[in-house]
Amino acid sequence: MGIVVQKFGGTSVATPERIHKAAEKVIAQKKAGNKVVVVVSAMGHTTDELVDLAKKVWGDRPGQPPKREMDQLLATGEQVTIALIAMALAAQGHEAISFTGGQIGMITDTNFTKARVKEVDQERIVTELNKGKIVIVAGFQGVTEEGDITTLGRGGSNATLVAIGAVLKADVCENFTDVDGIFTADPRIVTDARLIKEISYDEMMELSSVGASVLQTRAVEFAKKYNVPIHVRHSQTDKPGTMITAETKAMEHIVVSGCALKKDLTRVTLKKVPDQPGVVAQIFSTVGEANIVVDDIIQNTMEDGTANVSFTVEHGDVADLKVVVDRKLKEIGGGEAIYDTNLAKVSVVGVGMKQSTGVAARMFGALAREKVNIQNISTSEIRISCIIAKSDAEKALKAVHAAFDLGKA
Amino acid sequence: MGIVVQKFGGTSVATPERIHKAAEKVIAQKKAGNKVVVVVSAMGHTTDELVDLAKKVWGDRPGQPPKREMDQLLATGEQVTIALIAMALAAQGHEAISFTGGQIGMITDTNFTKARVKEVDQERIVTELNKGKIVIVAGFQGVTEEGDITTLGRGGSNATLVAIGAVLKADVCENFTDVDGIFTADPRIVTDARLIKEISYDEMMELSSVGASVLQTRAVEFAKKYNVPIHVRHSQTDKPGTMITAETKAMEHIVVSGCALKKDLTRVTLKKVPDQPGVVAQIFSTVGEANIVVDDIIQNTMEDGTANVSFTVEHGDVADLKVVVDRKLKEIGGGEAIYDTNLAKVSVVGVGMKQSTGVAARMFGALAREKVNIQNISTSEIRISCIIAKSDAEKALKAVHAAFDLGKA
Repeated sequence: MGIVVQKFGGTSVATPERIHKAAEKVIAQKKAGNKVVVVVSAMGHTTDELVDLAKKVWGDRPGQPPKREMDQLLATGEQVTIALIAMALAAQGHEAISFTGGQIGMITDTNFTKARVKEVDQERIVTELNKGKIVIVAGFQGVTEEGDITTLGRGGSNATLVAIGAVLKADVCENFTDVDGIFTADPRIVTDARLIKEISYDEMMELSSVGASVLQTRAVEFAKKYNVPIHVRHSQTDKPGTMITAETKAMEHIVVSGCALKKDLTRVTLKKVPDQPGVVAQIFSTVGEANIVVDDIIQNTMEDGTANVSFTVEHGDVADLKVVVDRKLKEIGGGEAIYDTNLAKVSVVGVGMKQSTGVAARMFGALAREKVNIQNISTSEIRISCIIAKSDAEKALKAVHAAFDLGKA
Repeated sequence: MGIVVQKFGGTSVATPERIHKAAEKVIAQKKAGNKVVVVVSAMGHTTDELVDLAKKVWGDRPGQPPKREMDQLLATGEQVTIALIAMALAAQGHEAISFTGGQIGMITDTNFTKARVKEVDQERIVTELNKGKIVIVAGFQGVTEEGDITTLGRGGSNATLVAIGAVLKADVCENFTDVDGIFTADPRIVTDARLIKEISYDEMMELSSVGASVLQTRAVEFAKKYNVPIHVRHSQTDKPGTMITAETKAMEHIVVSGCALKKDLTRVTLKKVPDQPGVVAQIFSTVGEANIVVDDIIQNTMEDGTANVSFTVEHGDVADLKVVVDRKLKEIGGGEAIYDTNLAKVSVVGVGMKQSTGVAARMFGALAREKVNIQNISTSEIRISCIIAKSDAEKALKAVHAAFDLGKA
């Protein structure tokens, strides 16, 4: 008898019929003798609809609605689903009990709209599991120590899945979604992309950070820390998907496991920033405090004693970034900010890269043959990324995927 | 500087436009120098839509979805509104903070779907009011001591309004709704019905219990206990409505203040119940434990040693009642239950009745002239009610309203 934590994303619970379908998967694990905890997202496009409602109320005023209230609003989406899943399980004859993030003590920091989980109180979950109940938990949400409702940002339900898997020392976290698993590239772009059966936490983190949208870096990082295997699989089939686990010996022989594309990048260039010690550091620390992840930083010093600094952020962070940057530039008394949204990033990832040479050359060669101009390169021990024009994005991904023979099993 | 608690019902917050309109009324009280707490219902038909969703998930299975999960589901409706009202106030330049029932410690019993408020922790509300913020509270909901979300049943937002008014010792509770106030009769039926400017708690309780749907008996009872005046008024105008207060000398001169009609009555007749001591008491105590209010009880003993017991309940309670009654009849080994839904009740209410004679005769005479057959009569010190056929309902109300000259100022 093990502990299984399952997560169903928004499309997997979009209608009453799909909710019953999800319930069947829950019951199958329960019947197999496992204790089951289920994490759910908001139904279908609920979150988007709530965001639209907030926008309508806010109107065309400058700024944005208060983030605390945004979270109060958005958290209702998952609360609807947990109740309905519990009802579906009851309808199918199984006792279930639903909990909001707050009700199971999913304590986060106070960083509204993108809070981080600090701790999870497993007591109530364990008590109900021991009574033989299936426990349903609202994904994407938590509460601050003061009791204010927070949401965990994009992919927050996966963070919930892994956090609960970790505290319960679950045997597996099943991430049910609307794709078959992790592919060697986005199969909507690369037609011969192949399902990856097993991938290491590190590779998955790198792939996520450079565009594989199925699972967020943060969730995988957490799973790695607590060594919880994640099984990413399709909610409408019974086929096994991709298992994300600790690195194995066999993985080392695969030089490149997959490649990914990021098309929602904005490059910010701060021009004529005073070139004095500490100024750039100040800018980045302010941006960091606003919880905005920056990447691909380049700094050039000009002859007039100023510097140009450029870096990339995700489109979604641009509104927040503008506020922070404008304030900071005013403070330091100089500089202007230019935003370029026509960029993309293509990356290859593989643990085998550590022992292998020529990977970069092979990638650059493939891009060169397709006449794709590389604007910037960044690397980690197991990843190589190139910033390119957005118009070259899909062509570049196809070329790289082919260059490493990823379509072949 | 006083404390004002305002409540906006579902139609008053049905759209972003109306939410801003409500926000203006809040701001007006704030600008007048008051500390303001706002209680809101779910937007428009949200609650009905959530109930439909639950019904779809439950399908045509016997019984009903688990009530705890129903409350988990329904409570989201008000949570959406509190966030949007807080955003609207922020958009109009006023600092506001929203709270769910749980977040302000609105503690209830564990009677899901119709819980009763046990206590309200005023600390968080007072703290935020003292910071100069407008406090928004979700109506209709609370939490048990264990932290499970409950809802307060029909008219629960009014219970929230009065409970908060009571703990804060508010100067007035403003109940904004989609009618001008309390009328001498339902103006949709009686065209010359007149707005009542001032009415006593006791009269309002009686009127509510016999069909005036604007405010529930329970909420008025609570307001009376803590002597909190309630101002029932229209959310789309600035006209004063009806003030519900402690009884004044002037009120005693009004024999009949208003009349009301209840059309959602079911009469249950339990036939051939063993006529033994305690059996009927057992039945009613079981029904009472299920939190179902019964009225107009009649018992007849038959010659065969059995008894017929009949009583009325509201249509909404019939599903719950059937479960309880069927179980009880099986236990006591006899009897059958017959449900008659074609009944109505017409009532007149007035504190002046205490010192006045001939009120009953005047009412019965009016009904007789319209050939309305009276099936049962029940009275209190300040009320007379007659059970009649549903088909006579509107005719009866008009006749009674005219008989007491209620249309004249």
